[in-house]
Amino acid sequence: MNNLPLSAALSQATACSMPIAHALFDAIRAATTDGVGISREPYSELEQRACDLLQTQATAMSLETCIDAFGNLSMTLPGRGRDQAGWITGSHIDSVPTGGNFDGLAGVIAGLTAVAALRSAGIVPAADVTVMGLRGEEASAWYGGAHGGHIGSRAALGLLPAAELDSAINSRTGRSLRAHMLDAGYRPDQVVEGRAVMDLDRYRGWLELHIEQGPVLERLGLPVGIVTGIRGAVRARDCRCLGAYTHSGAVPHEYRSDAVLATVELIHELEAEAERLRSAGHDLTFTVGKLFTDAALHSITKVPGDVGFCLEFRSQEDDVLACMTERARTASARIAQARRVEFDLGHFSPQKPATMDAGFRASLARGASDLDIATMDIPSGAGHDAQDFVHAGLPAAMIFVRNANGSHNAREAMDAADFELGTRLLAWMMAH
Amino acid sequence: MNNLPLSAALSQATACSMPIAHALFDAIRAATTDGVGISREPYSELEQRACDLLQTQATAMSLETCIDAFGNLSMTLPGRGRDQAGWITGSHIDSVPTGGNFDGLAGVIAGLTAVAALRSAGIVPAADVTVMGLRGEEASAWYGGAHGGHIGSRAALGLLPAAELDSAINSRTGRSLRAHMLDAGYRPDQVVEGRAVMDLDRYRGWLELHIEQGPVLERLGLPVGIVTGIRGAVRARDCRCLGAYTHSGAVPHEYRSDAVLATVELIHELEAEAERLRSAGHDLTFTVGKLFTDAALHSITKVPGDVGFCLEFRSQEDDVLACMTERARTASARIAQARRVEFDLGHFSPQKPATMDAGFRASLARGASDLDIATMDIPSGAGHDAQDFVHAGLPAAMIFVRNANGSHNAREAMDAADFELGTRLLAWMMAH
Repeated sequence: MNNLPLSAALSQATACSMPIAHALFDAIRAATTDGVGISREPYSELEQRACDLLQTQATAMSLETCIDAFGNLSMTLPGRGRDQAGWITGSHIDSVPTGGNFDGLAGVIAGLTAVAALRSAGIVPAADVTVMGLRGEEASAWYGGAHGGHIGSRAALGLLPAAELDSAINSRTGRSLRAHMLDAGYRPDQVVEGRAVMDLDRYRGWLELHIEQGPVLERLGLPVGIVTGIRGAVRARDCRCLGAYTHSGAVPHEYRSDAVLATVELIHELEAEAERLRSAGHDLTFTVGKLFTDAALHSITKVPGDVGFCLEFRSQEDDVLACMTERARTASARIAQARRVEFDLGHFSPQKPATMDAGFRASLARGASDLDIATMDIPSGAGHDAQDFVHAGLPAAMIFVRNANGSHNAREAMDAADFELGTRLLAWMMAH
Repeated sequence: MNNLPLSAALSQATACSMPIAHALFDAIRAATTDGVGISREPYSELEQRACDLLQTQATAMSLETCIDAFGNLSMTLPGRGRDQAGWITGSHIDSVPTGGNFDGLAGVIAGLTAVAALRSAGIVPAADVTVMGLRGEEASAWYGGAHGGHIGSRAALGLLPAAELDSAINSRTGRSLRAHMLDAGYRPDQVVEGRAVMDLDRYRGWLELHIEQGPVLERLGLPVGIVTGIRGAVRARDCRCLGAYTHSGAVPHEYRSDAVLATVELIHELEAEAERLRSAGHDLTFTVGKLFTDAALHSITKVPGDVGFCLEFRSQEDDVLACMTERARTASARIAQARRVEFDLGHFSPQKPATMDAGFRASLARGASDLDIATMDIPSGAGHDAQDFVHAGLPAAMIFVRNANGSHNAREAMDAADFELGTRLLAWMMAH
C-alpha cells in the first residue's frame, strides 16, 4: 500500500485495472455475438464460452475458482481472515436473445476489475471477496414470459422449485430446462427447493453492479445510482372482458355489452389510482402491455364483444401492490355490473419487492462522497439476481451505471468512464 | 270492394295474402341456403335465383315486370291514373354471407303481399304501385368493409362512382365487382355517376319495410316501428397511436410514451362527450370496434409503443357527427402533447344521415292507429336502400318489424304475425 489516501489509491488502481475489463468485454463480445447483438442463451455453448473466458482470467489472477452444480462460477480473492464473512459480488453471464454485452456481464467484470484494483493498491481485504458469474438470469426471455428466470441464483439459493426444470420449455428447441442443463454438463438433480448449495453464513452481503435499464441517470446527467430496492410486481397475464358482439348502429348504448368501453374505463380508473398513489409519494408503475380485440371477430361496425389484456403493477412497497390488486378487483366488479359485461382477470402472480440494505446504502453513499462520484438514489424497476439473495436472507446492495437506449437490445450504451466510476465504488466497498 | 271499413278490409285481405309471403320465404330460403344460414351473394346465381322466384310470382299476379341494367327487378301494379306519381316500395334481395332469410327479402315480399292484399280487397290505387327487388345492398360484406355497398340502388339512382366497379374486389374470388356484374349478364358500362336510370318524377315516395336489426322493439314489446331517420356515420378506419416501447419496470412514467394509456384517455374522453350529447337529447352511437397492440412486439413487461384502433360515430344529425369528429381531433392533439405520443387518426369517411319524410311518418302513424297496430318512433342505426332514394331526392319512409337476435346472422327471428302487421300498414299506405 502506497502513501496515497485510500480513495486516491483506489481511483488510481481501478484505472490501472481497466485494461482487464476492456479485454474481457471485447473477448466475450467477440465470442458471443450473433451478428446484430450478443446472444448468450442459458446453458448454451456461448454462455459456457463466456464463463470459460471469465474463469481463465480469474485463474490468471490466481483467484480460487469453482463451479457449482448449476454452472455458477465463483472466483475468490482470499482475505486476511479466511473464516470471516466477506463480500460476495457479481451478476449474470447470460443475456436475452440479441441483447447487449453489458446487461449482467458488466457486474461480473466489475467484480474481477475491483479485485484486481484491490491487488494493485496492495489492499488485502479483511475477509474473502468472492466474485460470481451466475447462469440463466434471463431464462424468461428464452423459456417463455411466465417463467421466473434467475435460474442460477435461485437454484444455488434453494429458491427454485424443481418442477420448473420440467415446466420451463425452451421456445427455440421445445426441450425442457432440465434437458438443457444436463446437456451443458450440470446437475439439475441437485435442485431442491429450500436447500441452498451456498453457505450464506460465509458472506457479509451481496453487492451487484448493473447497467441502469431505464433512462433516469442519463436524463439527470449522473454516472452512478445507488439502488433503493428492486420493485416487486403483481401481474395478471390473461385478463378478458366478455361482452356481446352486436350491430354498432342498430343497438342503443343501453342495450350494449361493450367490452372495449368497459376495459377502457377499468384501465383509466387504475391509471388515476396509480397517479394518486405516486402523488402521495409511493413507488409504483402501471403498465398494460397488451390490449386487443379478437381479430377473427372484430369489425368497425360491430360493438366489440371480447377484449384481452394484461395488467402489471410494480412497486418497492408490498402494500402498494396489494392496494392496486384490490382496486383492479373491485373496479372490474363494479364496471362489469354497470356495463353488462364480465371481467375475468385470472390469476395475479406476485413477485415480492427486495429492499436494499440501509447500512450498505449508507456505506455506498459515503464511498461515493469519498471518491467524489455524483450519485442519486434510484429504484430498480427490473429484477436482478440481488433480489434472490435478499429473499434468501442475505442483505444486498446494488450500484447502477448510466446506460443509454435501455437494455435487452443491441443498442445498450454504457460509457467505459461510467463503468470505471461504478467499479471504483465497488472496490471501495470491498476495501471496507 | 266490400262494405267493410278500409282498415278491416285491408286487415282481412292481408291475412288472405299471407300464403303468398309464406310460399316465397320458403322457396327462396330453400333455394339459397348454405346449410347454416342463407347466402345470396350480389350478382351470384343464388341472388339471381331469388330474383327469378320473385319475378315468377309477380308474373303470376299479372304485375308488369322489368329488370334494369344492374339487375334490379321492378314489379308494377297499374293504378287508376298511370301518369300519376305513385308509391315505390321494396328492399334488397341479396344477403350477407351466412345471413338470415329476412334481412332485405322481407321488404320485397311485403311489397308483393301488400299488392296482393290491395287486389284481394278490390282496391285499385290512384297511381301505379311499384315493388322493387334491389341487388347488392350487402356488397360491403362481400367486397371488403370499406366498400359502400348498396350497389343496385346507387347504380340505378346515379349515386355509384364507376370507379367502384373496379376498386371493389370480391374477398372470395379476388375479382372485381365489374367482372361479377358482367358474368351475371348485367351492364356495368351503364353505371354513370350523376345519371339515374330511374325517372324519380314517376314516384311519390319510397316505402321500405325491413326487420329491425337491433333489439329495441323486442325489448319494448312492440311489433312495428316507424323509422325517424337513418343514421349517418363518420368512420376513422385506421387510427394509430405511436409511442415508444420501453421497459415496464425501469422507465418512470414521466419518461414514457405509453400508446395504450394515451389511447385509453382518448376513448374515455370521447365516450364522455358522446354521453353528454345523448343526455342533451341528441342521437349518437360511439363504437371502437377494433383496438389492438402489436402482437409481434407487445409484452406484459414492455410499455406499449403502438396501438391500432378505429372510431365510429353514428347519428341522424350532421352537426353531432361534425362535433364528435372535431372532438376526436382536438382531444387527440392535446393528449399527444401531454403524453409524448403521436396520433394518426387517418381519414374520417363520412356517410350522410337520411331523414325520413315527416308527412309520410305522420301518415304511417295515422295508418297504424287506424289499423290498431302499436308502434313507436325508432331511428335506424344501420344503412338501408331508403337512404339512397333520400339522397337522390325522393322522400322516403321505413317500417321496422320486430326481430330477435339481430341481423346478419342465421338466427334472425321475425314472427310471421309481426310481418303481417307491418305488411298491413304498408298496404294501408299504398291505398292512400
